[in-house]
Amino acid sequence: MKLLAFLMQTGGHIAGWRHSRAADNALCDADYFRALGRTAEKGLFDGVFLADYLGYHPVRGASVFAGLETPKLDPLVVLATIAAETRHLGLIGTASTTYNHPYDLARRFASLDHMSRGRAGWNIVTSTMENEAHNYGFDSHLAHGDRYARAEEFVAVARKLWDSWQEGAVVADKASGRYTDPSRISAVDHEGTNFRVAGPLTVPRPPQGHPVLVQAGASATGQRFAAATAEVIFTSHPTIETAKAFRSAMHAQLAGFGRTPDGLKIMPAVTPVIGRTLAEAEDLKHELDDLIPAEIAISKLEGLLGNIDLSQADPDGPLPPLPETALAGQNSTRDRVLELAEREGLPVRELARRVAAGRTGHTIVGTAEDVAGTLIEWEKQGAADGFVISAPFLPGGLEDFVDHVVPILQDRGHFRREYEGATLRENLGLTVPVNAFDLDPGLRSRPEIW
Amino acid sequence: MKLLAFLMQTGGHIAGWRHSRAADNALCDADYFRALGRTAEKGLFDGVFLADYLGYHPVRGASVFAGLETPKLDPLVVLATIAAETRHLGLIGTASTTYNHPYDLARRFASLDHMSRGRAGWNIVTSTMENEAHNYGFDSHLAHGDRYARAEEFVAVARKLWDSWQEGAVVADKASGRYTDPSRISAVDHEGTNFRVAGPLTVPRPPQGHPVLVQAGASATGQRFAAATAEVIFTSHPTIETAKAFRSAMHAQLAGFGRTPDGLKIMPAVTPVIGRTLAEAEDLKHELDDLIPAEIAISKLEGLLGNIDLSQADPDGPLPPLPETALAGQNSTRDRVLELAEREGLPVRELARRVAAGRTGHTIVGTAEDVAGTLIEWEKQGAADGFVISAPFLPGGLEDFVDHVVPILQDRGHFRREYEGATLRENLGLTVPVNAFDLDPGLRSRPEIW
Repeated sequence: MKLLAFLMQTGGHIAGWRHSRAADNALCDADYFRALGRTAEKGLFDGVFLADYLGYHPVRGASVFAGLETPKLDPLVVLATIAAETRHLGLIGTASTTYNHPYDLARRFASLDHMSRGRAGWNIVTSTMENEAHNYGFDSHLAHGDRYARAEEFVAVARKLWDSWQEGAVVADKASGRYTDPSRISAVDHEGTNFRVAGPLTVPRPPQGHPVLVQAGASATGQRFAAATAEVIFTSHPTIETAKAFRSAMHAQLAGFGRTPDGLKIMPAVTPVIGRTLAEAEDLKHELDDLIPAEIAISKLEGLLGNIDLSQADPDGPLPPLPETALAGQNSTRDRVLELAEREGLPVRELARRVAAGRTGHTIVGTAEDVAGTLIEWEKQGAADGFVISAPFLPGGLEDFVDHVVPILQDRGHFRREYEGATLRENLGLTVPVNAFDLDPGLRSRPEIW
Repeated sequence: MKLLAFLMQTGGHIAGWRHSRAADNALCDADYFRALGRTAEKGLFDGVFLADYLGYHPVRGASVFAGLETPKLDPLVVLATIAAETRHLGLIGTASTTYNHPYDLARRFASLDHMSRGRAGWNIVTSTMENEAHNYGFDSHLAHGDRYARAEEFVAVARKLWDSWQEGAVVADKASGRYTDPSRISAVDHEGTNFRVAGPLTVPRPPQGHPVLVQAGASATGQRFAAATAEVIFTSHPTIETAKAFRSAMHAQLAGFGRTPDGLKIMPAVTPVIGRTLAEAEDLKHELDDLIPAEIAISKLEGLLGNIDLSQADPDGPLPPLPETALAGQNSTRDRVLELAEREGLPVRELARRVAAGRTGHTIVGTAEDVAGTLIEWEKQGAADGFVISAPFLPGGLEDFVDHVVPILQDRGHFRREYEGATLRENLGLTVPVNAFDLDPGLRSRPEIW
């Protein structure tokens, strides 16, 4: 079983930060992130996972900020900080293909991979919120299809750049005075719809070849992109059935891209709410839910449904029909919420609390035995290759998982007792990608210069 | 006296990496950078300084690579690595205003400032080389004036973003459930020629208010930009006279921007070549110069003169007239080389060796006493507020400076015996900028939303 620790800003439960065992105002504090890294490494996690979002949710009214909008530092700077404190832990950071440039981002991830000796991972997102667009000079965000077309080209360019230094490119031979072997360094000369990039990168090929590529898009386009590209899928499923169906469907899509399931780890997010007894765990869940102010839950629901306005809706009535604008385009989060509302016939207030509470779509409330049992069951039934553990509050919830759940997973033979490899890729059981320039020397361009 | 350690990839001497006391193939190795950080902090340096360049020099012929083109990692990732190993050392990284976006870059520097508890500095460059443009989708680099106009607007946006969280913006009050105080967080609503940025940033105001702003442009436009913006100028002068004239001229320009010399530290770069005796230092200098292959020196000269072609020039003859294209536009490096060639009547081969050897424009060859004496003399005569020490090779050359020159500077009362402050800004004697939104609450926009 593979495990990642999701370091969601204020925990996997939206009000988790208010819990007594949550850190106090620590989101800009290096010591907080270092301690989380140490805890995850003590628990032999494959890696930590940082989400990201390049702005604030559009808000109507001040209260929405509370508990929702918190400081969000640049993931790569935070991961480099954690890297320095750890030796085996993988370091996965979210970065947008819509608001970055591939030369810069490929270089930053390659740098993190070198500085961590092969522990970097990139969670590829295309960004969906209007206010992110407004921070980058656009009136509105790119259409769904255009974002994914750009993402595909972006990743293709990044791969070429990572490959632009072949094995042996760095000579660093003091005797001969040769630092590099230019015959092992290639321009990439990419000319595409979105990018023109000459290359080579300024950084030798990363220790992992490429950083581990992670994806979370759940729409049809997102799934196709993941089938073509991702080595880890960070997904979200309320039930084992939907998780199994998703994993089967993803496996079926791999063949079309010449891939096999070996090369793809599907990892649903889980929020474990752990007590010494079931009753204690349930009490903890109620304690956490009671910490969510009602207006925040409804604002969160408004955001998830495409920034609709529910201020006129009866909190005890059913969800009113959504406006045309909110129904346009692919949006798997919105669709999941609508499906939940219809399936369970929830009034607005209750729907809001349900979708606001857990950020992962799947909360397990119970003892450490219960949590371990559920994870093992999901894995056995083919619903998952591992899990993204989104502790309801940090660091306490992660410590509980490491101290109580991990030993059970180990005792039952489902989790490592020591790291298998030196890199994230090795620990996840993923192979190093072949260098495209090794595979096809004809790709090397401008030989008259190089 | 203020001191920065320039961690030039292969040392301040172009062939320094070939020296026996230079690290072996370490430019992607976190341990190498950590050790350099520890050495600089042991020497009570104000900070380390990382140059950057977003591509490779255009080359003609493979040999040019050797010793010139080496791995260059993303400075912020490297600095975050050094930050984790140090407690007082400032962390100054170069980043381009031409090939970054202000929302992203402001956020990355703010993140580094938080993760290091107030030790970040940004060396603002506009990028000058064609091949950087080619990596970012442009046919050629922006014209000089356009680059600086963009840089000015870029810095203005970054400042607004850093100020977008006022003191007290983060509440993180578990009892009330308020994480932030929206009345202390502002949109920036920047609408300019180059950028439209809504804001706010996703990161609270950095511990230093703004990271320390560093600039090195030596052209008239660059000087004007520095007078308006810079808190540290990284400069380069072959003689004390030109350094004094430059410092006076810069001080004179400050008034036009409502500034005083207190707020600006002018720090020439120096390459100290240190021996136990003068003869030993001279031997070391010759040893280093002899490590430069002739064709590399000439290629370097070609690059500095605007990528001209000297393959047909007689190495023992004078520099041929430059083509029109190479003479166009402002380029202070080119002008300095031409001035040196004319002043000393050097043949091409010798000119090439001279400009290729030292990268700083000022090499001091002598004992630790000689080096300390020169630095003190420059400071006394008003030629400098401090120095950027570019050791000829790393780590050996930096260790020599720390072990032998620093104690003399201390004994003569010219250098600290312990750090004065907790932040880079405090150690440099610079004040925290006033928050623009504190100064003028009228700047706060969109009050109906926020």
